[in-house]
Amino acid sequence: MWHGRGTEPEAVDRFYSVIPAGGIGSRLWPLSRASAPKFLHDLTGSGQTLLRDTWNRLVPISGPDRIMVVTGRAHRAAVEAQLPELSDLNVVLESEGKDSSAAIGLAAAILQRREPGVIIGSFAADQVINDNRRFRQAVVEAIAVADAGYIATIGIQPSEPAIGFGYIQSGDAISVPGAPSAMSVKRFVEKPDLVTARRYVEAGTYLWNAGMFIARADRLLEQLGKTQPELLAGLLRLAEAWDTPERGAIVDEVWPSLAKIAIDYSVAEPSAAEGVLAVIPGDFAWDDVGDFGSLAKLQSGGRKSDLAILGENARVLSDSSSGIVVSETGRLISLIGVENIVVVDTADALLVTTSEHAQRVKSVVDALKLSGRTDVL
Amino acid sequence: MWHGRGTEPEAVDRFYSVIPAGGIGSRLWPLSRASAPKFLHDLTGSGQTLLRDTWNRLVPISGPDRIMVVTGRAHRAAVEAQLPELSDLNVVLESEGKDSSAAIGLAAAILQRREPGVIIGSFAADQVINDNRRFRQAVVEAIAVADAGYIATIGIQPSEPAIGFGYIQSGDAISVPGAPSAMSVKRFVEKPDLVTARRYVEAGTYLWNAGMFIARADRLLEQLGKTQPELLAGLLRLAEAWDTPERGAIVDEVWPSLAKIAIDYSVAEPSAAEGVLAVIPGDFAWDDVGDFGSLAKLQSGGRKSDLAILGENARVLSDSSSGIVVSETGRLISLIGVENIVVVDTADALLVTTSEHAQRVKSVVDALKLSGRTDVL
Repeated sequence: MWHGRGTEPEAVDRFYSVIPAGGIGSRLWPLSRASAPKFLHDLTGSGQTLLRDTWNRLVPISGPDRIMVVTGRAHRAAVEAQLPELSDLNVVLESEGKDSSAAIGLAAAILQRREPGVIIGSFAADQVINDNRRFRQAVVEAIAVADAGYIATIGIQPSEPAIGFGYIQSGDAISVPGAPSAMSVKRFVEKPDLVTARRYVEAGTYLWNAGMFIARADRLLEQLGKTQPELLAGLLRLAEAWDTPERGAIVDEVWPSLAKIAIDYSVAEPSAAEGVLAVIPGDFAWDDVGDFGSLAKLQSGGRKSDLAILGENARVLSDSSSGIVVSETGRLISLIGVENIVVVDTADALLVTTSEHAQRVKSVVDALKLSGRTDVL
Repeated sequence: MWHGRGTEPEAVDRFYSVIPAGGIGSRLWPLSRASAPKFLHDLTGSGQTLLRDTWNRLVPISGPDRIMVVTGRAHRAAVEAQLPELSDLNVVLESEGKDSSAAIGLAAAILQRREPGVIIGSFAADQVINDNRRFRQAVVEAIAVADAGYIATIGIQPSEPAIGFGYIQSGDAISVPGAPSAMSVKRFVEKPDLVTARRYVEAGTYLWNAGMFIARADRLLEQLGKTQPELLAGLLRLAEAWDTPERGAIVDEVWPSLAKIAIDYSVAEPSAAEGVLAVIPGDFAWDDVGDFGSLAKLQSGGRKSDLAILGENARVLSDSSSGIVVSETGRLISLIGVENIVVVDTADALLVTTSEHAQRVKSVVDALKLSGRTDVL
């Protein structure tokens, strides 16, 4: 892949993918759980996990040797089973989850030490994208923008006034060679109510925040240091020791003290305010499959008259024309007269709710944590 | 108990209870099923099965030695485990279910041969009655009426315009010593619609048909013979051989050919038309727990703001204020935002429906039969 002009390789050849594979996906409990987080499930019916889908989407961009996975120690075996091509050098294990600033920041710091000038792109392990070609086009534009010094993101063209996602308000076009659709970012906005979401979609200048960030590693760390200097210092210490025999000792010392903060707050929003955040509109179907309502929609391919059924050995007898059944047990599941129903049947836990209430599943997980019933989490 | 006047013992001392323990209770699937029919479940929270409740209710009336149980061969062990006092002499095993005319008729024929002049009362094994004293009073009146030659039944004073039960229209008072509340029966009516049911309850002359029949065995057989002479002939052959070494051979020969017909049609309705059917009003709470809707109502004791939970090891996390959860697995069951919900969680089958649709559970059982999936029936 190294075909340079002069001494510096092209931007895309300096690109490294980072996959933070951390979140459990609490709103998909009891399907997703600590021992089997969302990214280890096949939620699309593709026959492979979301993590593997993500890997396959990134290989054509950065090649299999330039994809780093940041995940919990508990998931190492599962991740390696999913990604046999993943080299040890590209596995970053967290002793405990520290949110995205630490996860992505550590990857940036390690890669920057190994390869100064590297451009990284961070893509969650548990999202669904239907068009890998258009995704790649957007990433290539974002790499060009990142090479010019911006923190870049890819914002998804909204297909409907969704209230489950945050939005990115785009501003003026940015003139960067190789990135014809790049725009500045005015601001990030949190998940809106429906009226506001409709206004956003009508305005035409709002994109869904898919949490994809592409930047030169040094620029990302620089921006992080402005808001989280202690976190940055910790990450730099870790990176310094990472490829040495000191790694274990330094991880034990430093990692527990790192701040838990989403990269949206530590880097993206401040960079937008500073005018150094750019967005590439992504013109492809995208979903973060945040809850069983969106999973039902995804599974039924938008057909409203279908009950979605997920699970290899599912046996369902139903007169329902909407909702979703997720079966991990092979038990016979019989539904009578229930619509928009969500039934998730696992070996030790059963969830019954409706698409409408699916967002509230997280509250069950919280209640279980509080009551100490962690055996089913 | 034998304290006679002259040679004939008092009517109540000639009384024999018969418990047909046959129906599976398909509308309570997957809780009730062929291997674990309704009468073998504790549906009241009494700590014992409906069969045992029924037995305990009848012991004060006829004594434990004068209760005959008619049940399927497959249930013999379970029935004997529930009723250790039950003597072999009082067990009638069916090789296949032949409906109530054959079950009760055979008991009548056997008992009449053993003890001419016996009065029998037949009480289903899977009903719930809250007041055993008032029940006994009604049975004692019915025995007096039966001794006078009537076919007697106990009709339940309706507490609401139920549409899940058949009704008995009562007529004039009948003058029988020891049965002050006895009335003639004008007719039986099938399950009504709600408007009709309201009219019945307002009229004050309609009672719920609880399927309790009390009659002299010879009179019952006589009435049966009028509409089902072949069935009667078969039953008499069986009874003749019953207490002899021929029993097995005659059962194998005769039983398969017996007509399947409910005693309501073969005896009760024709007897009403003939003017020889009497009814004693039963002034006690009664339920046949026909579906999960009534089970929910029964379990919540009429409180509308409670989710009923059935199952020793049930673990339920719910924000529902109505409906019922039946748990046989001990799995964690979580309900979010679903009302009037019915969730029945068993080892190999799961049912999700609503109280409103609970009557339709039988259609699932029928569908499973048709599709050959009898493993879960």
